Amino acid sequence: MFKDTDFIKSCDVPGPTKEAIRAIILYKSDVSPTDKVVDCGCGTGGITCEFAKRAGEVISIDTNPEAIEITSKNLEKFGLGDNVKLINDDGANALKDIDGIDIAIVGGSGRQLENILDIVHEKLNSKGRIIITAILVDTKVEAINKLKSLGYNPQIMEVNVSNGRVLDRGILMISENPIAIMTAQKR
Amino acid sequence: MFKDTDFIKSCDVPGPTKEAIRAIILYKSDVSPTDKVVDCGCGTGGITCEFAKRAGEVISIDTNPEAIEITSKNLEKFGLGDNVKLINDDGANALKDIDGIDIAIVGGSGRQLENILDIVHEKLNSKGRIIITAILVDTKVEAINKLKSLGYNPQIMEVNVSNGRVLDRGILMISENPIAIMTAQKR
Amino acid sequence: MFKDTDFIKSCDVPGPTKEAIRAIILYKSDVSPTDKVVDCGCGTGGITCEFAKRAGEVISIDTNPEAIEITSKNLEKFGLGDNVKLINDDGANALKDIDGIDIAIVGGSGRQLENILDIVHEKLNSKGRIIITAILVDTKVEAINKLKSLGYNPQIMEVNVSNGRVLDRGILMISENPIAIMTAQKR
Amino acid sequence: MFKDTDFIKSCDVPGPTKEAIRAIILYKSDVSPTDKVVDCGCGTGGITCEFAKRAGEVISIDTNPEAIEITSKNLEKFGLGDNVKLINDDGANALKDIDGIDIAIVGGSGRQLENILDIVHEKLNSKGRIIITAILVDTKVEAINKLKSLGYNPQIMEVNVSNGRVLDRGILMISENPIAIMTAQKR
Ligand SMILES: Nc1ncnc2c1ncn2[C@@H]1O[C@H](CSCC[C@H](N)C(=O)O)[C@@H](O)[C@H]1O
Ligand SMILES: Nc1ncnc2c1ncn2[C@@H]1O[C@H](CSCC[C@H](N)C(=O)O)[C@@H](O)[C@H]1O
Ligand SMILES: Nc1ncnc2c1ncn2[C@@H]1O[C@H](CSCC[C@H](N)C(=O)O)[C@@H](O)[C@H]1O
Ligand SMILES: Nc1ncnc2c1ncn2[C@@H]1O[C@H](CSCC[C@H](N)C(=O)O)[C@@H](O)[C@H]1O
Repeated sequence: MFKDTDFIKSCDVPGPTKEAIRAIILYKSDVSPTDKVVDCGCGTGGITCEFAKRAGEVISIDTNPEAIEITSKNLEKFGLGDNVKLINDDGANALKDIDGIDIAIVGGSGRQLENILDIVHEKLNSKGRIIITAILVDTKVEAINKLKSLGYNPQIMEVNVSNGRVLDRGILMISENPIAIMTAQKR
Repeated sequence: MFKDTDFIKSCDVPGPTKEAIRAIILYKSDVSPTDKVVDCGCGTGGITCEFAKRAGEVISIDTNPEAIEITSKNLEKFGLGDNVKLINDDGANALKDIDGIDIAIVGGSGRQLENILDIVHEKLNSKGRIIITAILVDTKVEAINKLKSLGYNPQIMEVNVSNGRVLDRGILMISENPIAIMTAQKR
Repeated sequence: MFKDTDFIKSCDVPGPTKEAIRAIILYKSDVSPTDKVVDCGCGTGGITCEFAKRAGEVISIDTNPEAIEITSKNLEKFGLGDNVKLINDDGANALKDIDGIDIAIVGGSGRQLENILDIVHEKLNSKGRIIITAILVDTKVEAINKLKSLGYNPQIMEVNVSNGRVLDRGILMISENPIAIMTAQKR
Repeated sequence: MFKDTDFIKSCDVPGPTKEAIRAIILYKSDVSPTDKVVDCGCGTGGITCEFAKRAGEVISIDTNPEAIEITSKNLEKFGLGDNVKLINDDGANALKDIDGIDIAIVGGSGRQLENILDIVHEKLNSKGRIIITAILVDTKVEAINKLKSLGYNPQIMEVNVSNGRVLDRGILMISENPIAIMTAQKR
């Protein structure tokens, strides 16, 4: 496992996705060593590093060149990356050239979520899994509605985590912001 | 109502107790214009200002002289304070000289919670209410056990609030830390 | 204060709005004894009873006749209701005949939220407050967007409450479902 | 992955530990195919089944014979169990005969938590991990204090999950009760 603080960070790139969320995504993904994974909006590389350890192949995309750079640095820090391809492009564009996806993570989409899901749906293998994370309330509704319109039976889980600081005077709980995880599986 | 940002703050004094928690405390207190209220650990004055507006008399205590000062400033800012007495002392000590309490708020106690509750119990009117807030997990257990041992039927509510930032790109929810509110009423 | 369990309930009517949420709504409403309040979607009467105690006049509306009946029973149980008018109609319709609103609570709207907010906006006094509660994620987005389009500066707070059962073996926390509270004030 | 509803349940046995919590425990455990795992208080077998799939060897203990029976049924349902030993005994007693533990999960302890942790500490391999789940506030404090006194640097994470029901009228979020996860690693 990685600790949140293990990751190299940059002020201009969001992430890494926090530990509990990474754990839940990994679990829901049912990842296996032969899976082809796309991480759309790889940010700091929190999700990319987790799947690099467990999947066959990972393709990580981000519009922000700095995100690609910092994801690359984190992969290197953890001795990972041999099975990872980094693409600095818009997800909706980069996905056009990717086929046979087993697991598609959408951790960032700008205003392209519907487009990205259209292409992901097309490129996803049968039994393939889509996992979308959201920090905006709007994204939750948009993701669920789009997944429904594509014929999926989507699920949504919202997670509120707080972490303790174990002080001399007692245990002080500090909250993380709520994160929603929307998931769907292709028939 | 006050907004959280309405209060003058100081780096060295915790508080103010956040809006939702102030609202719940006010509601649970059933405060009326004849009530005598003690605010033990008044900090920034978040609770003191609320009760100054609604109670007959408020006595606010804090070991930290800066807390007394900043509470005083906030009362002044809101045009309140005529019915408020500020005491710079340990709660366990100051409470010895106070009688006929209708509502006792314990928002800070250091390691004196049991002592403070012993004295509060003695000085509390029949039908009087005790309200304790906790940011430490340990304080929750200590408060409930002490209230039970004093013969109360204590209640505990834990509140996790997140507030939205309404941005152009959507609604981003930001979490406050969890707060527990323990309450009891004298027979 | 009322306990959640104080209210008469019916299987076919949702509510009452839980204690912490009632407390926060009351606080945000800044209700005073001269205020004219509309409770659109009064359900079990949880909100209606609170405002009946504190406002000048309350008009409570529900499309469900059983909600009107049970709200009436709860008002009677608490010795309230002299200043309450109950209307069994769609909110969007009933609101057309109501003027000079100081506080509008929308606790239920079916698919009429935008219509209801259009009329509320028209009938709301200057400095009047709108408070919308939501259990659906979609309602949060719809409410915020509509309030923005009407020229308001809306706020949203999400509240996760858990209540303790104080057992011999310890304190067991039981969660309520998350509730969002959207608010806005007319200039 | 298992869904919560995949597990056979019994009214008299708590569990299964919910999906998000199982995911986080798995992640924090860093389980590998050679690990020896103890699940103290296996209940319905939620945790036992997860580790049976991923660890070398699992020993599951419960004082309640019905928990042992239902854990056995769930293992069978999922085609697992060849590497699992079930013991119907008190954890503090059964652990005395177990050596070389890599991962110790304590999901139930009655009033024996301190005793159980004393023995777990003794039997845990270097680099071994202890994971305790708590539904009682008291257990959080007890676990952290005991782990500290045994020389660990314990961590605590509290998780509040809500799951969506995707309805025609929108997304309704339903809360699970809060769960705390306390972890520590032997040097
Ligand atoms: N349309 C799009 N295509 C590709 N990347 C996008 C995008 N819209 C937003 N993003 C990227 O999505 C990222 C979201 S932050 C992701 C954090 C990441 N999961 C981690 O664990 O580190 C940002 O870096 C942003 O640049
Ligand atoms: N034994 C004690 N007696 C009096 N005050 C105490 C105390 N132990 C801690 N305190 C005070 O308790 C305060 C807790 S912070 C309270 C914040 C306050 N409710 C607000 O809304 O602003 C601190 O200012 C601290 O100095
Ligand atoms: N368009 C509409 N006009 C009026 N009432 C409506 C409505 N759409 C839904 N409702 C009503 O809104 C209610 C929501 S439940 C409200 C619970 C209430 N706040 C309490 O504390 O008891 C339901 O009773 C439903 O019948
Ligand atoms: N001292 C002790 N030794 C062993 N089991 C115990 C115990 N005290 C409590 N338990 C057991 O701990 C269990 C807690 S419920 C555990 C649920 C389980 N993690 C799951 O996923 O299904 C109960 O079945 C209870 O019988």
